[in-house]
Amino acid sequence: MTDTNRVFTLAKRPEGKPNRDTFELVERDVPEPGPGEALVRTLYLSVDPYMRDRMRAGESYAEPWGVGDPLEGGVVGEVVADNGTEFEAGDVVAGNLRWADFSTAAGPDLQRVDPDLAPISTALGVLGMPGRTAYFGTREVAQPDAGDTFVVTGAAGAVGSVAGQVAKLQGARVVGFAGSAEKVSFLEDDLGFDAGINYKETDDYRAALAEAAPGGVDAYFDNVGGPITDAVFTQLNVDARVAVCGQISQYNAEELPTGPRKLGQLIQKRATVEGFLIQDFAPRFEQATRQLGRWVQNGDITYRETVTEGLENAPEGFLGLFEGENIGKQLVKVADREE
Amino acid sequence: MTDTNRVFTLAKRPEGKPNRDTFELVERDVPEPGPGEALVRTLYLSVDPYMRDRMRAGESYAEPWGVGDPLEGGVVGEVVADNGTEFEAGDVVAGNLRWADFSTAAGPDLQRVDPDLAPISTALGVLGMPGRTAYFGTREVAQPDAGDTFVVTGAAGAVGSVAGQVAKLQGARVVGFAGSAEKVSFLEDDLGFDAGINYKETDDYRAALAEAAPGGVDAYFDNVGGPITDAVFTQLNVDARVAVCGQISQYNAEELPTGPRKLGQLIQKRATVEGFLIQDFAPRFEQATRQLGRWVQNGDITYRETVTEGLENAPEGFLGLFEGENIGKQLVKVADREE
Repeated sequence: MTDTNRVFTLAKRPEGKPNRDTFELVERDVPEPGPGEALVRTLYLSVDPYMRDRMRAGESYAEPWGVGDPLEGGVVGEVVADNGTEFEAGDVVAGNLRWADFSTAAGPDLQRVDPDLAPISTALGVLGMPGRTAYFGTREVAQPDAGDTFVVTGAAGAVGSVAGQVAKLQGARVVGFAGSAEKVSFLEDDLGFDAGINYKETDDYRAALAEAAPGGVDAYFDNVGGPITDAVFTQLNVDARVAVCGQISQYNAEELPTGPRKLGQLIQKRATVEGFLIQDFAPRFEQATRQLGRWVQNGDITYRETVTEGLENAPEGFLGLFEGENIGKQLVKVADREE
Repeated sequence: MTDTNRVFTLAKRPEGKPNRDTFELVERDVPEPGPGEALVRTLYLSVDPYMRDRMRAGESYAEPWGVGDPLEGGVVGEVVADNGTEFEAGDVVAGNLRWADFSTAAGPDLQRVDPDLAPISTALGVLGMPGRTAYFGTREVAQPDAGDTFVVTGAAGAVGSVAGQVAKLQGARVVGFAGSAEKVSFLEDDLGFDAGINYKETDDYRAALAEAAPGGVDAYFDNVGGPITDAVFTQLNVDARVAVCGQISQYNAEELPTGPRKLGQLIQKRATVEGFLIQDFAPRFEQATRQLGRWVQNGDITYRETVTEGLENAPEGFLGLFEGENIGKQLVKVADREE
C-alpha cells in the first residue's frame, strides 16, 4: 500500500460551466481510521450532475462544498483497515466518501456490497442512488399506469435509462429523449423503449414528440428541463403527472433568464408537477435495491456504464456529463480490488 | 318588453390583446323558448379572464367560440316566459347564457337564485364560479395549514380576494400581489390580509416577497403567472403546494417565448404544482356555495364588485380585466329587475 493519498478539492467556484480549473488534485497522507472507523480504498467513484449544485455557494439540496475542501461522492471501495466497525479488510463497501484514493468512514456510514450479486460498480448505478431515484421517481411520483405514455429526458443516462425500463415494466409506452443516434439505438434496441428522439437532430421538439407520442403524454420524468420540457408541457394529457428529478440543461446557468411560462398548460390538463429528492425515500431504499436486483438478475433491466480510468481523470468524467458523453452510468475507475 | 335583442358576437379572433373590434353588437329578434325552455332577460353579465381563451382557435379547456357566433358567459337574469320548466315569470336564475339582452335555456341549465340570501349579482361572484374556484383551489389544491404562509396573485380580483380570505379562515398568514395602492389597501384594510404587495411599485418581486413573507411560502394560489410566479418559486418552502388557477399575464401572448425554466426550484423543495379546473369539483358546488354564503352573511368574507353599466359596454368591462381596472368581481349590469 502506498503512503500517499491523492485527493481532489474544489479549487474555486465555477462561473457558468465548470472546467478543469474548478478542481485541484492535492497529495495528503493516507488517513488513520479513528475509533469506530474503517479505512477504505476507492475502487470506483461516481460522478453525478447534482454535484454541480454543491459547487455553488448558497442554499441547495446538498450542502455546498467549501473552496479548498475535498470533494465527496458515491464510492465503492475495499476495506483495508478496520478500527472497530462491523467490516474487515477485504470487504467491499459503498458510501459517500471522498474523491480520493483513500477515505475513512464511520461503520454506520458504509453499506456492505455483495460482489456475488452483481458487479460491484452497480452499487453506484442501477443498484445504487441512480437506480433508486429512477425507481421511486417513476413508481411514486410520475406513476405511469399500464397503457399510459411515459416520457423521460436524459433517457440514456444513469437515471433515465432505468426510469424508462421501470415504466415499461409497469406496462407504459415509453419515449425517451437523448442526444445522439447511438443513444437512441441504445434506447430502442437494448432497453426496449418504444421510441427514442435524438434532440440534436431537430429544433422542433414538439413535433418530434407529437409524432413519437401521438396520444399525448400521461407521465413525464424530467432530468433535463429547458426547451425540451417546454415542448413536453404542450403535449400533456388530462391528469398528467410530471416528476422533476433534475434539470441538467440549467445547472450551469448563473442566472436563469426566465421562469415558468407555460404553467397555463397545467390548468387545462389538471396536471401535477412535483419535485422530489431521493433522500425522502430512504426508509424504502432496501426494498428498491432488492427489486432492482431481481430485475437486473432476470434480465428485465439492462444497464450500461461509461468508465473513465484513473482518479486523476475524475474531472473529465464529471465534465463529460454536461456534454452528454456518457451512456448509462458515468463512473471513474480508481483501482482494482486486491488479490 | 322590447322586440329586439342585442347580442354580442365574436367579430374576429384577436391577435395578442383583444380590443373593441374583437366584438360586434348585432340586433336579433327576441327568441322564443322551445319546449322545456325558459326565456331569460339578462340582469347581470359576468366577464372573466378565461374568456380570452375561448377566443382562440384550437384546443382549450373551454370550447373555442366560432367567429360570428354569440358570446357566452355567466348571467343572472329574470325569467320572462316559461315553456315547461320548473321556473315561472319573475324568478331569478343564473346560467351560462349569451352576452345579450335575452337568452333561452333549458330548465336544467338554469339555477335558482334566492334574492333574499344576498344581492343577486353575487351569484356571479363570491357565491358563484369565482367564489367556488377560490374555495376549492385554496382548500383542496393549495391547502394552506394553520400557520402556513399563503401567497395569492391577482389578490384584489374576484377569485384572489376570496382565496386569500378562505386561507385566512384556515389560519394562514396571507400575502397578496395586486396592481395599485388602492388595491393593496383593499387587501390589508378591508379583507384582513397580512400584507399586500403593489407589484407596479417594484421590479424586484423576490425582495418584496422575502420582506412580506420572511418565513418563505408554503402555499401559492396563482392567477397571474409570469415574472411574479418566477419570484414566488424562489421562495417556496419544503413541501410547498402551488395551485395554478389562471395565468392572466400570459393570455394575450400569441407565442409564449419560453417555458418552465425554474422547475429546479421544485426539486430542492419537493414542491408540487397543480393545475385545476373548477368543473372537476361540480359535485360539491352546493356545499361550497352554502359555506361561502354563511361566511358572507356573518361577515367572515367581504366582497366587492366593479360594475360596468349597459350591455353595449360589456367589451370595455372585459378588456379592463387585462388592465387591472377592476377591484373584486367585474360585472356588466344589463337591466334592472321588473316590478
